[in-house]
This record gives sequence, C-alpha cells and structure tokens, in this order.
Amino acid sequence: MAPVITLLTDYGLEDGYVAACHGVILRIAPDARVIDVCHLVPAGDVRRGAAILAQTIPYLPEGIHIASVDPGAGGTRRSVAIESGGRVFIGPDNGLLSWAVHAAGGPSAAYEIANEAFFLDPPSPTFPGRDVFSPVAARLSTGRQTAELGPAVPLTRLVSLPSPTSQLREGSVEGEVVSVDRYGNTQLSIAAGDLRSLGVRVGDTLGVWLGRRQLALPFRETYAAVAPGELVAFADSAGLIAIAVNCGDAAQRLGLPPGARVRLAPVS
Amino acid sequence: MAPVITLLTDYGLEDGYVAACHGVILRIAPDARVIDVCHLVPAGDVRRGAAILAQTIPYLPEGIHIASVDPGAGGTRRSVAIESGGRVFIGPDNGLLSWAVHAAGGPSAAYEIANEAFFLDPPSPTFPGRDVFSPVAARLSTGRQTAELGPAVPLTRLVSLPSPTSQLREGSVEGEVVSVDRYGNTQLSIAAGDLRSLGVRVGDTLGVWLGRRQLALPFRETYAAVAPGELVAFADSAGLIAIAVNCGDAAQRLGLPPGARVRLAPVS
Amino acid sequence: MAPVITLLTDYGLEDGYVAACHGVILRIAPDARVIDVCHLVPAGDVRRGAAILAQTIPYLPEGIHIASVDPGAGGTRRSVAIESGGRVFIGPDNGLLSWAVHAAGGPSAAYEIANEAFFLDPPSPTFPGRDVFSPVAARLSTGRQTAELGPAVPLTRLVSLPSPTSQLREGSVEGEVVSVDRYGNTQLSIAAGDLRSLGVRVGDTLGVWLGRRQLALPFRETYAAVAPGELVAFADSAGLIAIAVNCGDAAQRLGLPPGARVRLAPVS
Repeated sequence: MAPVITLLTDYGLEDGYVAACHGVILRIAPDARVIDVCHLVPAGDVRRGAAILAQTIPYLPEGIHIASVDPGAGGTRRSVAIESGGRVFIGPDNGLLSWAVHAAGGPSAAYEIANEAFFLDPPSPTFPGRDVFSPVAARLSTGRQTAELGPAVPLTRLVSLPSPTSQLREGSVEGEVVSVDRYGNTQLSIAAGDLRSLGVRVGDTLGVWLGRRQLALPFRETYAAVAPGELVAFADSAGLIAIAVNCGDAAQRLGLPPGARVRLAPVS
Repeated sequence: MAPVITLLTDYGLEDGYVAACHGVILRIAPDARVIDVCHLVPAGDVRRGAAILAQTIPYLPEGIHIASVDPGAGGTRRSVAIESGGRVFIGPDNGLLSWAVHAAGGPSAAYEIANEAFFLDPPSPTFPGRDVFSPVAARLSTGRQTAELGPAVPLTRLVSLPSPTSQLREGSVEGEVVSVDRYGNTQLSIAAGDLRSLGVRVGDTLGVWLGRRQLALPFRETYAAVAPGELVAFADSAGLIAIAVNCGDAAQRLGLPPGARVRLAPVS
Repeated sequence: MAPVITLLTDYGLEDGYVAACHGVILRIAPDARVIDVCHLVPAGDVRRGAAILAQTIPYLPEGIHIASVDPGAGGTRRSVAIESGGRVFIGPDNGLLSWAVHAAGGPSAAYEIANEAFFLDPPSPTFPGRDVFSPVAARLSTGRQTAELGPAVPLTRLVSLPSPTSQLREGSVEGEVVSVDRYGNTQLSIAAGDLRSLGVRVGDTLGVWLGRRQLALPFRETYAAVAPGELVAFADSAGLIAIAVNCGDAAQRLGLPPGARVRLAPVS
C-alpha cells in the first residue's frame, strides 16, 4: 500500500509553494500518496492550524503528517518529529501539532529534526516546509527511521498549545468560539458531552449568554431541524457544540468572532 | 486500472472538510484516484453545483461521482446513488445530480442510500459528505453493488432541477445568464445550435437584448477575434453562447448577474 | 515510475476547468501523477505565471509541464512543446514558459503543437488547456514523441519574456518588485549574489531606495532575525532578495506593488 503523506500549511494557493513541497516529496518517494489537508490556514495562525489538523486527523489514513504554520519560522525554533498511534507528525515545536497528537492518542516518542542528511541541500532558512519537512517525510515514508533524525526530545518538553477553555460550573458551561466555517457556523470549545452532563437533551431549549446578551435557542440534532433563517444549536461533526442559522450565517448574525466567550445552560 | 472517485462540494478550502473526505475514501479504497471537481460552489447553490458538474462530466473518466451541495443537509432529504452510462452519481436527491446524469445519458437505475453498514459509524447528521457519501463511494469502488445500498428509487421520482430556460420563437432565442466565470465571461443558457437554427453564422453581427438595452455584437469563433476591450459573442467550450470582453470583464461591463434574461437574434 | 504531468493556469478554482484537464489527462494516461502547480495566477498575468513556474520547477520531478495563461487564447497564437533538461514544457508561445525553460537549463528542441490527432475532437478554440495541452501531455507521457506534434520551431524564434530587470552599477543594484506573497513579503528581481558582489554580508545594514524614500534595513538570514513588526531584508527561498516585516506585511507597510522600482546599496 502506498505510503500516505499529508500537508497542512498557511502557504495559500496563489503561489507555487505547495507544489514545491509535493515535488520534493515525489522526487524522493514517487509512490507516496499526498493529501492536502488545508493550505488556507490564516498566515501565522497556529491555533487555527492546530484545530483543523486535530479535527481532520481521525479521518486520515495512518501516515506522515506535515504541518507548517509558524510566525517564527527561520528563527531558532526546534523542528520535531512526534510518533503517535502509528502516525508521525512533523513540524515546528510551537504547539501546532499538539492537539492532533492528542487526538491520535498522545505522543509515544519525539525527536528533534537535526540530521541535515535528510534535508535539501542547502536548506533555505525561510522555507522549512519545502527544504526540511518534505524531504524528511518522504525519506521516512521510504523506510528511514525517526530515531535517525536527531536527539530524542523528552515528551514533557514538547510545546503544547493551551486547549480552548471550557469550564463546567454551577449548572452551566462556558467556552469560546473556536472557529467560524464557510457557512458562518460557529464552533464552540464546548463538547457535546458537557451539555449532556448538564442534562440538556436534543429537543430542549438552550440558554446562550454572549457577553450581556442572552438568547434561548432550540438544541437540535442538526440545523435543518429549524426553519430557514432561524438560529439553532447542535452537536457538530467534530463532536463540539455549534451555533448556526439554517441556510444563513450565524457568525455574522450574532457578531461572533473566534475567541468570543459563550456560556450555555439548560433553560428550566 | 485504479478506480476513479470525484468530489464536488460547497465546503470551501479554508477547513479540513475536503481532506476528511479524501481520507475516508483512501482508508477504505487505498488505490482509488480522487479528482476534485470543485469545492468553491457558493454555499448552498444547488444550481451552480449542478451546472459545474454537468459541464465537467464529459471530460472525467468513468467513475463514482460524489456531489454535496444541500441547504437542507441534515434534514429528511433522501440520499441517492444513480447509475448512468457506466458512472455512478452519489449525493442528495435535490436535483444537484440531475443535469450531470442527463449529460451522462440519463439514469438507468437509482437506489436510496439507506444501508448503514456502508456508513461511518455513527454518521454525523450534518456531514453526509464525509460520513455517508465518501464511504459509500469507496466501498462501491472496491466491488460492492449499488443495489446493496437500499431500496430502488423509481427513475420518475428522482428530483430534477428545471433546466435554465431557453426558448426559440419568432426568429429569436431567449435565455438567461447561467454563470459568470473568473474572467467575467457570461455563459448563457442558449445552445450554439439554437443560434445556428436561426441562421446566425460565425462572422455575423448578433442582436442582443438585455431588458430594454439593445446591443449589436460581433459573433465570432473566439473572444480573441476582436480587439482587446471589445465585446463579442461566441460558442464557448461547453457549447453554449457566451458574451465576453477580450481581455476584459463582460459581466461587470454589462451588469449581467446569473439569472439575467438575454434575447439574441440575427441582425438583418 | 508513474509519469508526472504538472499544471499551471489562471483558471481559478471556482469552476470545473481544472478538473476537466485532470480528467482528460487520466482518461488517456490513467497512471499519470498530476501535480497542480498553481491555478490562481491572476487572469492573463503571463509574467506572474512565468515567475511561479520558474521558481517551482527546480523542485518538481522531471515530467511534462503544462502552463496556460494567455490573454490572447483562441487567437492565432502558436502553441509549443519545448524540451529542456529531461522535461517537456507545453503551452502558448507567449513567453509564459521562457523563464522555466531557462531555469531547466535552456531549450534543446521545440515543436509547434499542430497535429490534431493529439487533440480532443473537436477542440474548442477557447479552452486549449483542456482540449490541446492536456491530451498532448497525456499522450507524450505514454510514449508519443514531441517530434510528432508538428514542425520544429527554431529555438531563436521562441518568444521570451524580458526578465525582471536588475542592474549593478556604481556600487548599487537596482531592480523591481517581482511579486508579493500571501504574507506580504516582497520579492525583488535582485539576486542574492548581486548583493554579495557589492560586499553586503549577512549582519550588515542595507540602504534601500524606494523612489524618493530611503530606508536603512538590517540584512539578515531570515525575517525571524528581527523583532516582530520590524522590517528586514534577506535572501529568500528562491535566491532573490526580499523585504519583509517579521510577523507583518511589508508590501502594505511600504506601499510596494509588483513592478515598483527598488535600489539597494551597502551602507558605509
């Protein structure tokens, strides 16, 4: 079976940057399957990149997963390869990989990427995706070992992003807007299980506090359960609570950018 | 030969949604070739999705063609698999597939997608592309049969989108703007053959009525046949009449959005 | 090893145009690997397309490289296949291919693409990418010869784009902004070697003249060598001098569009 290599970056699609990575990989590993996870991560937005990777990983074949979003690229940041559950994650040690590694079962080993024999020669200091991550992933896919990449990194020293906060207390749960997708659906940092533990069931009405505003929204299985144009809360395809407008844009309607605080509670 | 699976959605490219579909497919069918038809269909625009798929199908290898554009996703909409001319189309039964099925020669059999043994377990009610269409397509590509998916659907019960209207009468033909592409070329619902039947030949001048405005445009083989900046009508690469500005944007120049009515007639 | 075919176009991603090219290729050459170099070249921007292709080519496997950016498509423009260093470049003879051919070592043979037996039947005059370039590339990848495509074109008759100018004189080097990437980094037409020949070393301060404005910028190995928000000059991943703001947008900060003149000199 062809080895799988996946790519998540903030390179955008207006240039040949992504293609250069594909090319480097295929020159070394002509049989690899390359899957583009996302290249439109907002420039330098490590948290958004981490969220997309973590939410996609459960659906990707086991493989070697490159991620490159790093406002400090070219600096002294360490690059790492992290083994986790049959997968290898490759990228900067800035937390970008941490949520995906957690989703894959947690790290079992990690190595600093230091062995220049794996790199393009000479690597550009500003394009590690092309010159370091891609050739490293390709060589690993053809049988080289992660332990050859450099010194082991103690797992407790790996940089982790703080997870989007979500706190259960006094009969309510508080969290934040994690992301807004193309449809204007706002995904919260609140797990469906947290609402269940508060006794909220599909069909109930849900109290929603946005700063000083308070709303009462139907909690349904899907946005299609309400009339077009109506607000609704539901457990989304990643198992998180989302607020949507059926056939409309909830983020715009409610003025909810990523990071906005939201509190949910049953309406008694 | 590797089986071919194609994907058309309105998921956009800012998230990992498309990659999740690729991943689900390749976990089940590691040898499949996956072709992305388009993922920037405007959110919920079933007619636009239908038009893109129908115009692209003649150029795609025979395979399994997934389409997911559905403002009512997650509701009670039936999902279907439609066999047509060596191809299988998979998607919501909301008309999205109808023009492509017609372009492939019309339906020969259809089945409701109901057999949960084909789905991811459990399927999210709001992401049928990932949890239903992708695993169904992958399993069909590895030898499962469409008849296993669920009950047969009478072909007359399949939802069809009304085709963009085009009416020949009294020496003229009336239609509408079907789409505007990246260059500002406006594609009409008027087939090149309709103009021919009115006696219009390449090299003639064409009368164009846009509401109360009337223009006389050169009808040529291509937009490059007129000087840069000039308006021109021609038969486009899908066999439909298009109005363009050579090296310019006709939709902007003429204020012609999709759906605008246009009447064409020979200038005598 | 699977033959490699690459695609660079200005077709955008909102339509099925790119997928139609993939489809045509795979119907003829089911084993080909297709790499998308870029499809968001600004419509008709031949120089930008040429720059992206030339900067990506060194990282792509040897293969058949299609490029389609041509404001005059559908006119009388000749299409060509150019052999260069184990690669074949296919596209309009409008200079689009010239920088990439140069990057690949210069042309060794060229043929007009005239043999209609290689085309889709009948080719649309406005979509050579789908109807001419794609089937030609696919047939070449399965063993047909470039010499079968049509009459040889003398290498001196191939259209070349003038390279972005860069002039060394009187202790300074003058060039222009070649491109601005997604991060706002501005790439100049000035090679890193030209600065070295003026005695500028990493760590020095660089004088930068933008019209009447004069700046003194640190010349570093990477943008990460300065504090966030600070301007910096460095040799970028294509070996050209770039001006950036660490974690910021230099093009916006300095008002530097593509084509703007820039002069660099050591600060003594």
